[in-house]
Amino acid sequence: MEPRHIDEIKRMITRGRVLTEESDRYSYSFDGSFGTYLPEAVVQAKDVQEIAELVKYANRELIPICPRGQSTSLSGGPLPVKGGIVLDLSVMNDILEIDEEDLVAVVSPGVLTAAIHKAAEGKGLMYPPDPSSSHVSTIGGNLAENSGGPRGLKYGVTKDYVIGLEVITPQGEIIQTGGRTVKNVTGYDLTKLIVGSEGTLGIITKAILRLIPKPPASETVMAIFDSLVDAGRAISKILSSGILPSKMELMDQASIVAVENYEPSGLPRDAEAMILIELDGHPAAVRDEAKQISDVCKEVGAREVRVPTTQAEKEEVWKARKLVSPAIVRIKPTKISEDATVPRSKIPEMCRRLQEIKQKYNVHLVVFGHAGDGNLHPNIIADKSDKEEMKRVEQAVTEIFEAAIQLGGTLSGEHGIGTMKAPFMEMELGTAGLDMMKRIKQAWDPNNIMNPGKIFPEPGQKLVLSE
Amino acid sequence: MEPRHIDEIKRMITRGRVLTEESDRYSYSFDGSFGTYLPEAVVQAKDVQEIAELVKYANRELIPICPRGQSTSLSGGPLPVKGGIVLDLSVMNDILEIDEEDLVAVVSPGVLTAAIHKAAEGKGLMYPPDPSSSHVSTIGGNLAENSGGPRGLKYGVTKDYVIGLEVITPQGEIIQTGGRTVKNVTGYDLTKLIVGSEGTLGIITKAILRLIPKPPASETVMAIFDSLVDAGRAISKILSSGILPSKMELMDQASIVAVENYEPSGLPRDAEAMILIELDGHPAAVRDEAKQISDVCKEVGAREVRVPTTQAEKEEVWKARKLVSPAIVRIKPTKISEDATVPRSKIPEMCRRLQEIKQKYNVHLVVFGHAGDGNLHPNIIADKSDKEEMKRVEQAVTEIFEAAIQLGGTLSGEHGIGTMKAPFMEMELGTAGLDMMKRIKQAWDPNNIMNPGKIFPEPGQKLVLSE
Repeated sequence: MEPRHIDEIKRMITRGRVLTEESDRYSYSFDGSFGTYLPEAVVQAKDVQEIAELVKYANRELIPICPRGQSTSLSGGPLPVKGGIVLDLSVMNDILEIDEEDLVAVVSPGVLTAAIHKAAEGKGLMYPPDPSSSHVSTIGGNLAENSGGPRGLKYGVTKDYVIGLEVITPQGEIIQTGGRTVKNVTGYDLTKLIVGSEGTLGIITKAILRLIPKPPASETVMAIFDSLVDAGRAISKILSSGILPSKMELMDQASIVAVENYEPSGLPRDAEAMILIELDGHPAAVRDEAKQISDVCKEVGAREVRVPTTQAEKEEVWKARKLVSPAIVRIKPTKISEDATVPRSKIPEMCRRLQEIKQKYNVHLVVFGHAGDGNLHPNIIADKSDKEEMKRVEQAVTEIFEAAIQLGGTLSGEHGIGTMKAPFMEMELGTAGLDMMKRIKQAWDPNNIMNPGKIFPEPGQKLVLSE
Repeated sequence: MEPRHIDEIKRMITRGRVLTEESDRYSYSFDGSFGTYLPEAVVQAKDVQEIAELVKYANRELIPICPRGQSTSLSGGPLPVKGGIVLDLSVMNDILEIDEEDLVAVVSPGVLTAAIHKAAEGKGLMYPPDPSSSHVSTIGGNLAENSGGPRGLKYGVTKDYVIGLEVITPQGEIIQTGGRTVKNVTGYDLTKLIVGSEGTLGIITKAILRLIPKPPASETVMAIFDSLVDAGRAISKILSSGILPSKMELMDQASIVAVENYEPSGLPRDAEAMILIELDGHPAAVRDEAKQISDVCKEVGAREVRVPTTQAEKEEVWKARKLVSPAIVRIKPTKISEDATVPRSKIPEMCRRLQEIKQKYNVHLVVFGHAGDGNLHPNIIADKSDKEEMKRVEQAVTEIFEAAIQLGGTLSGEHGIGTMKAPFMEMELGTAGLDMMKRIKQAWDPNNIMNPGKIFPEPGQKLVLSE
């Protein structure tokens, strides 16, 4: 980027800041995944008209723009892999409006997802998507990546709650998609095309989110198993029993031991698996359902089933699940967090394949996650300074992707493709399927300025974790 | 289409039929909307490879292809407005598979939607979308138009339940989109782009639908109001009370009188409005909720509230709603069924505007429909042989669209754009928004062979109902 570009951009952005010092730019060079890429400039922008002008300029001068929220992405979403501008939208956070009559929230992209949860709950409503990072991630990032989370089982994902957007196109035009109605079939669904497009098709500057009444009660069930296979069978049996839990989380032995080492609370280190279930709805309904689920778990061979009665006890149970991520990075510093997802019926087979991969490549593999919707999180714990180990990790990750696709699943359930999974896109989509996606990118952004280097593999691109 | 094309197509289609007789072609010249367009040939196809070959040929020879299910479309979806081939997919109905473990249905496009409901319910599951035409419409048509129905309020629309598709692209390539998992963020969401694209982006040859456990119980509440405004207030108040009914239907006085004339059952002819509500879920929950809703309706001034207790009584209540459509066509032969949709909070204002339009143009306007999600069905009853009346209808319909958009709503909640609403697209989407949709069409179907003449307005195109 030439110096004249910086001057021009500084002139354009009056509400916000343009950062060019190396120390500032460095803070914008990484996310929650791999690799470090220094942007040439960082724009903290608050005004939609000014961003539109910036995009028009970038499109004319062929400067890459990478939109970014809080950079918690686990797939490289906001990394400026081709240089150019990182557009920090976390500062665009002025609107957070809950409309109780229309049952919608209208939000700016920089609003934290947890703030939306809180505002909705304050009015007896609920915004269901709750990625684990919701207390630190922005809704803009959630929209760009189509975030999931544990409630996907019953409530679906971010996309299922977005009914309207304000978007700046790669040509710098401001468009409105969808609106404030749940039903809308006027033309192609640009809303759901843009949600999950990882910043490659435009910049989201406002969103209209559908809310639902907050369920009046919830119950928690915790079941402990001596066998991972039995836990898998319990999950299948519960899901075909006519009950739809709001959460159904699995922790394998490695996760249980890691959490117990990190913060001892009496978890059973010798158990092969634990399932944590949350039910929400009418008080009488969730009481009945908790009883039914306890019975199913016992029938299938659970060693112990607990149904905590007080709020404090319930929170204690869920705390164990939340501690998995911080606990496992104590083992080794580098965490490769995958989200390959399989059809529900294939969960036991996927667990088996993961154990094989773990042994074959001698990697530290921990399995936990959203078992109810097949969205397991196989995490590999390693040390990125150990090049030989990282080579084995690369091979193990590749085989995890292959296993998921062979079982009829997908590369990514909720983290996005970004840079790391791009080489595997064709394996899942086929040449023709990938081609139809590229046509959309090409038609919308012929100059390839919007978050270039993402999603689509470059010729011969391979997974590289050992830098 | 030249005779050589017909010969070539007959050679290609070995599993199915090619119809060229005028009498056969005539049966394929209309749908549930306006206008008659004779196709040059009709292909009844059963084999995905053969259809792919047909599309490749049509793309090379520039022959329009219009996919069609049972032709119940209310917006011109399957009409061959540019001639060419009507592709009858109602004969492709061999697959209807319910997978209880993965909680999905896998279906061929020609399967009737009601057959999916029945198959799912047979296994204790539910496929929520239920357009009023579900007993006669195919799932392929529902997918192409993104059908809605009364359960949209609680359960969303067709799109919310489609997680995977097999699609033939306009170049005749067979692609798979999505899969059998609820979570999938591998690339752009082609599934949700194709659902609702009204046959303009490809041909759906298989679909994977998400199912949910069938709610164990339901309750019905019927509330009668002397004032339409009070009915509107009751709807708002129920929706902000923390209860999400599975259905919430409105019938205005004109609909009540029409049904009572058609098949007398003691409905109150002098009432200005009736609301019919269905709750589903746990038995204790729906009992509680029915009580709460009854109380709200009484508080707001309902003249009478009924909570039927037997199944037969419940069915009697819902029968009244189902009879509206057949009843109103007894008044005059031509029914113009609109589905302009407004944000929930704007329902009372939309009702007021509709009454104004009715008087201003002296048209026979009946209002009923899915009040809970703002998807009213203003229907105008007329006689299409009366040219002067049809001119007034054209003006009234135009003003209904304008009112919906001014109130922050949409041209179409569930019927689709087709031919009739194309002239109004830009009013809702703006030039830039419409342009982004056209880019997708152009990139996917540069030869414009897939259902040409639909969705996108031609220069200067206006609404014409008076042929």
